[in-house]
Amino acid sequence: MAHLGDIYSRDPKQDKALSSNFGVDYVISYKVPAKEKAEAEAAFVQLIQALADTGFATEVRHGDNDSLLIFTKIASEKLLINQIYRYRLQDWLYGIRISAPDKDQAKHLQEEPVTEAERLRLTYLLITKPKNEGGAGITAKQGTWKYVETIFPLHDHTFNKNWIKEWSTKYSLDDNDLIQIRDRFGEKVAFYFAFLQSYSTFLVFPAAFGFAAWLLLGQFSWFYAIVNSLWTVAFFEYWKVKEVDLAIQWGVRGASKIQLPRPQFQYEREAQDPVTGELVKVYSPWKRLQRQLLQVPFALACVAVLGSLICSCFAIEIFISEIYNGPFKQYLTFIPTVILTALIPTLSTFLTGFAEKLTVLENYETQDSHQAAFVQKIFILNFITSYLGIFLTAFVYVPFARVLVPYLSVFQTTAQRFTASGKPLPTKQFEVDANRLTNQVIYFTVTAQIVNLVLEVVVPFVKRKVFKTVKEVQTEMSSKKPVTRYQDSEDEKEFLARVRTEASLDEYDVTIDYREMVVQFGYLSLFSVVWPLTGCSFLVNNWIEARSDALKIAIGNRRPIPWRADSIGPWLSSLAFLSWLGSITSSALVYLFHNSKRGPDGSPSSVRGWVLLLTIIFAEHLYLVVQILVRYMVAKLDRPGLQKERAERFAMRKNLLEESLGQDLTEQASGLGVTGGEKITREALEEEQRRASIHGQSHEEAFWQRQRGAAETIQIGRLLISEVGQVASNQTTIQAKQSMKA
Amino acid sequence: MAHLGDIYSRDPKQDKALSSNFGVDYVISYKVPAKEKAEAEAAFVQLIQALADTGFATEVRHGDNDSLLIFTKIASEKLLINQIYRYRLQDWLYGIRISAPDKDQAKHLQEEPVTEAERLRLTYLLITKPKNEGGAGITAKQGTWKYVETIFPLHDHTFNKNWIKEWSTKYSLDDNDLIQIRDRFGEKVAFYFAFLQSYSTFLVFPAAFGFAAWLLLGQFSWFYAIVNSLWTVAFFEYWKVKEVDLAIQWGVRGASKIQLPRPQFQYEREAQDPVTGELVKVYSPWKRLQRQLLQVPFALACVAVLGSLICSCFAIEIFISEIYNGPFKQYLTFIPTVILTALIPTLSTFLTGFAEKLTVLENYETQDSHQAAFVQKIFILNFITSYLGIFLTAFVYVPFARVLVPYLSVFQTTAQRFTASGKPLPTKQFEVDANRLTNQVIYFTVTAQIVNLVLEVVVPFVKRKVFKTVKEVQTEMSSKKPVTRYQDSEDEKEFLARVRTEASLDEYDVTIDYREMVVQFGYLSLFSVVWPLTGCSFLVNNWIEARSDALKIAIGNRRPIPWRADSIGPWLSSLAFLSWLGSITSSALVYLFHNSKRGPDGSPSSVRGWVLLLTIIFAEHLYLVVQILVRYMVAKLDRPGLQKERAERFAMRKNLLEESLGQDLTEQASGLGVTGGEKITREALEEEQRRASIHGQSHEEAFWQRQRGAAETIQIGRLLISEVGQVASNQTTIQAKQSMKA
Repeated sequence: MAHLGDIYSRDPKQDKALSSNFGVDYVISYKVPAKEKAEAEAAFVQLIQALADTGFATEVRHGDNDSLLIFTKIASEKLLINQIYRYRLQDWLYGIRISAPDKDQAKHLQEEPVTEAERLRLTYLLITKPKNEGGAGITAKQGTWKYVETIFPLHDHTFNKNWIKEWSTKYSLDDNDLIQIRDRFGEKVAFYFAFLQSYSTFLVFPAAFGFAAWLLLGQFSWFYAIVNSLWTVAFFEYWKVKEVDLAIQWGVRGASKIQLPRPQFQYEREAQDPVTGELVKVYSPWKRLQRQLLQVPFALACVAVLGSLICSCFAIEIFISEIYNGPFKQYLTFIPTVILTALIPTLSTFLTGFAEKLTVLENYETQDSHQAAFVQKIFILNFITSYLGIFLTAFVYVPFARVLVPYLSVFQTTAQRFTASGKPLPTKQFEVDANRLTNQVIYFTVTAQIVNLVLEVVVPFVKRKVFKTVKEVQTEMSSKKPVTRYQDSEDEKEFLARVRTEASLDEYDVTIDYREMVVQFGYLSLFSVVWPLTGCSFLVNNWIEARSDALKIAIGNRRPIPWRADSIGPWLSSLAFLSWLGSITSSALVYLFHNSKRGPDGSPSSVRGWVLLLTIIFAEHLYLVVQILVRYMVAKLDRPGLQKERAERFAMRKNLLEESLGQDLTEQASGLGVTGGEKITREALEEEQRRASIHGQSHEEAFWQRQRGAAETIQIGRLLISEVGQVASNQTTIQAKQSMKA
Repeated sequence: MAHLGDIYSRDPKQDKALSSNFGVDYVISYKVPAKEKAEAEAAFVQLIQALADTGFATEVRHGDNDSLLIFTKIASEKLLINQIYRYRLQDWLYGIRISAPDKDQAKHLQEEPVTEAERLRLTYLLITKPKNEGGAGITAKQGTWKYVETIFPLHDHTFNKNWIKEWSTKYSLDDNDLIQIRDRFGEKVAFYFAFLQSYSTFLVFPAAFGFAAWLLLGQFSWFYAIVNSLWTVAFFEYWKVKEVDLAIQWGVRGASKIQLPRPQFQYEREAQDPVTGELVKVYSPWKRLQRQLLQVPFALACVAVLGSLICSCFAIEIFISEIYNGPFKQYLTFIPTVILTALIPTLSTFLTGFAEKLTVLENYETQDSHQAAFVQKIFILNFITSYLGIFLTAFVYVPFARVLVPYLSVFQTTAQRFTASGKPLPTKQFEVDANRLTNQVIYFTVTAQIVNLVLEVVVPFVKRKVFKTVKEVQTEMSSKKPVTRYQDSEDEKEFLARVRTEASLDEYDVTIDYREMVVQFGYLSLFSVVWPLTGCSFLVNNWIEARSDALKIAIGNRRPIPWRADSIGPWLSSLAFLSWLGSITSSALVYLFHNSKRGPDGSPSSVRGWVLLLTIIFAEHLYLVVQILVRYMVAKLDRPGLQKERAERFAMRKNLLEESLGQDLTEQASGLGVTGGEKITREALEEEQRRASIHGQSHEEAFWQRQRGAAETIQIGRLLISEVGQVASNQTTIQAKQSMKA
């Protein structure tokens, strides 16, 4: 069995296997548990029928020992084109496209060729959407389809190989690279890389400035804090614009309006929509709100569980490293780190699972709202695990250590119980470790990042190796090779081996990558004033990160389904929150630690509550004002995306207007020109009036008949103007008389 | 000359004059200065020609002594229909309308009849827009048209009469009333009344609750402050939604996207738009930004001028009322009030004029941006004049009086200079007036409101009366009646008299009315915790205000040009600002004054800076969190307007989809059904493969040929499934063996 880790070897036979996907759109991995063979068979028949009815060609091969692989492709080109055209039309109706697709389908497709991502996305929708909407209605792991393990597209290894190769030689991604990613993996993944790219580019500034600040200003510089805060605002506002820009360039602006229904959504009742008459599935929003309120206890529980764990480890650590002075000190110091390293991921995983369950319970109609709600929860989780420790050091340990440390004697008492002698443990005089905060920040921004990177790359690799070995051993140990009446044909052998490997890989989840970046941004925003080199560390880290993420998608995971997206979604508000919070923490840190006139116990002396609060208020509101100003300025800039949109809209408008109205807009009411019009005298007018009264003209008609044509109006107007002079001169005389009298 | 103030008398002759507008669309009041008769005449000829060329019928009559009245109407019905249709099409193109107007113009107009407001608006545009866009290009008081005083539509007095009559008998406006206002005066005015109505309705709550709080909780209750703050959030969020809702109902959502160019805009150069190829007028945004920065010194100057005036009056007042104890005290007390009453409006008017000039200097392309920038400036002005006094009392006078009062002796010294005796003025011991704050708030929320109302109604009335009398006297004193060769015809006499009166009225400016309401909202949000009855006072005031505003539009002013609007525009952000600031001032006031444990000098004792700041921070952030929550909840609600929009969009989408795609979407790739497909055996398959290799089929083709049709896939799948069992049982055996060994 070929291992994907080795896929870019020089083996020509493998190259062949990788060079073609045999025209397969999707592979369905179908589990057949030995004990439920009959049901699995029945469901299998249904599955193939459903696929065939929808218009898929199917092939089946054996997969792992207890699974089948079903290969599907859209059988009729016409069906595919129809789908694409229909979705593009829908895009236009929802305002995502500006110009309607050409009525001539063939011409249209020539003008706007189908990308691989689009084709795969629509095919996937065709497989999964309900039957009454024209799909096959196959939802993995649900109901009838509980044996369907996954539905996944195959990697385009030729592309991946080039991508990785090219990328390791250049520093940054340009627009073309992003478009390539988008064409292959869809906008959702492309948005992640675009974000990573923009963020990394922006990081150059805090890296350079941070380095300078580290040399010249030292720690806790208010100047650094202000510049850093400005930078977060600038980056956030830039990205908000860039995001819209990219969405327009990629033709997906507003794509989130077309919501993907969540198949797991459970409705209370079906009701006719009062608006559209459509039959819609309804779930009471109030019930959902009630369930959403469970987030509050959830958040509190997270704070309690993770917080108490972090607090106790923190306390133990302080006790051991700064009070305890007995034997084994050098080993005991590691206890809290070990505890944390062991428990935090476990608890995190557990709580994430719980968050997932809560989100499912909230029962959202659409994928997007589900995802957003989930992201919100894991953001809380990550906030606690990532930042709580530093918060404790900065705002509890250093200022209040003298007050709190005596309580740590509880450890002493506890420890004494376990020592045979019962005599007091050797301690030393407590001293606040002034470098603790700095060390902690360095740990989180350097060490933890490296550890994380290693885990991300190495662990899945090791996992796969082990897994593979186990399987091989199992197979070897079986007394005879499994009976396979249908051996892989020679032509397909490598291809099938490769597909089997891909089927065994994990699903790619972009959320994890976003989370990592957002948490990183948080360190920069919240705490980099403690250690200005933070930016440098992140810059290096992200260069590797981008490449390791690419590798992860290309080799480490199954090819993701190329979903669309028009922004980085819920993470945007997380960034906003962290940027805002940064203004508060930075100002507080600067005020607390800037003076360096630390008391004998290391705690900052002469801290005044009201000055601290005033500093925070001032910094926060300065931040908000600057944000408004930056927004205003950014709005003034003309972005290429918006320009493109305007151009398209203008063209469409012009076409349509010309089409429906032609050039007859300037049709001037004829006969109203200035020329013509008979000479008028008072007699003529009076005559007219007399005539009018005889003919019983209405007042209105008479009014408009008095001056026929513009020429007459002009004539009479002239007369009236000449009169004005007379009246005016009369008045002038009067005024002159009056002034003479006075 | 009939006076509009008397128009609703029972004089039948007048009734006739009021019942018809003679089909006039617009009246142009044309000034003819006696000294510039020749130029005026030439320009007049041009004017009539321009109007005629565009398609207007014209009639001219004499106006006031030195002016002409030019009556215009669109001459050809077809031109009007064309205009309307074109603008509706434009609306559709910009996404303001959801469904395109019917291609058959006649049918379309029957389906959606033209409202008076629409007709008048488009006619006005036709008169004013540049010639190259098909208009007459007449811009009042500018360039060639400097003699054009105003261009105004005539009041529909039949409607106005009914409107006022109906309104004096009912309490609140319903949607129909608003639609009527909109149909006559346009959306901009209708939005003001809608806002006033919503605000007044919402006021019922703070009025009732405020009354209860006044009885039960007293002043400076934290409970009142919280409820009041919640109310401001609720109202603001409600209005934001309501506004969108109304815009949809009135079919103007997004109307602000079609910007009305400002004729006064001066461009630096004309350039081809890189996007549209249109020739656009360009003014450097950076130059504008530079000019916008002048706002900062302007704001500072306002603060300095108005602030120092208010401060000095404040100081004088305190000196006289609370320190000075000599003769004439009862009269001297009024000095500061007199100074303020005399100077504030004067200064305000001056500064408003200055703000207007600044805004003109900023040189905006569009009416909307000009208006928004202007509103921003007058908001600053009004903020200072309205609230600064109370701020001073609450946050300077009461807490710091003891510190500051000694400085007031400067007045004493000054005053001594002017007294002959030179002996010290009689003073009394200074005491902080604990009721000062309350009295001041009552003054601003009751007295000032009444005074304002009176001024608004009475002053223009008196002004007109005086003006009229002066004119009559002038006319009488002239030795002979002005020579008018064209006396008004008997039929038109009353009509023309009425038009002449309307021409002499002021322009209606909705900004002033908005300003009043926003300032009022500010008192409620910022200071009502001082005096909870504030809400009651405003409720009563607004009932009268709504009616007096209606009277103002109907009788007191010229009929406004019925502009469109899709929101209350820049005032929205003023409301948001006041609501937010309210959370801060209320919490600060409650903390400072709640305890009532005032020291002997009346200043709140035991005020701690950090507690005050913490209170403010807490209140502000609570406010922000609540705002986010309320927004979230409001977003969940389904509003009639949004529902209507969805319904229309759905219908349009459905129609278009059916039109272009028909019912052939479900065309299933035929021949892929489950039926059919030959019986397959292994031999047949191998045979097939052999054949394939002979015919040189590609691997891909061969792959998809192996199972032809779904039936074959099912058959083979079944075989594979049966195998799974065997393999699994093999493995089971192995595992069993292993476990036996262990």
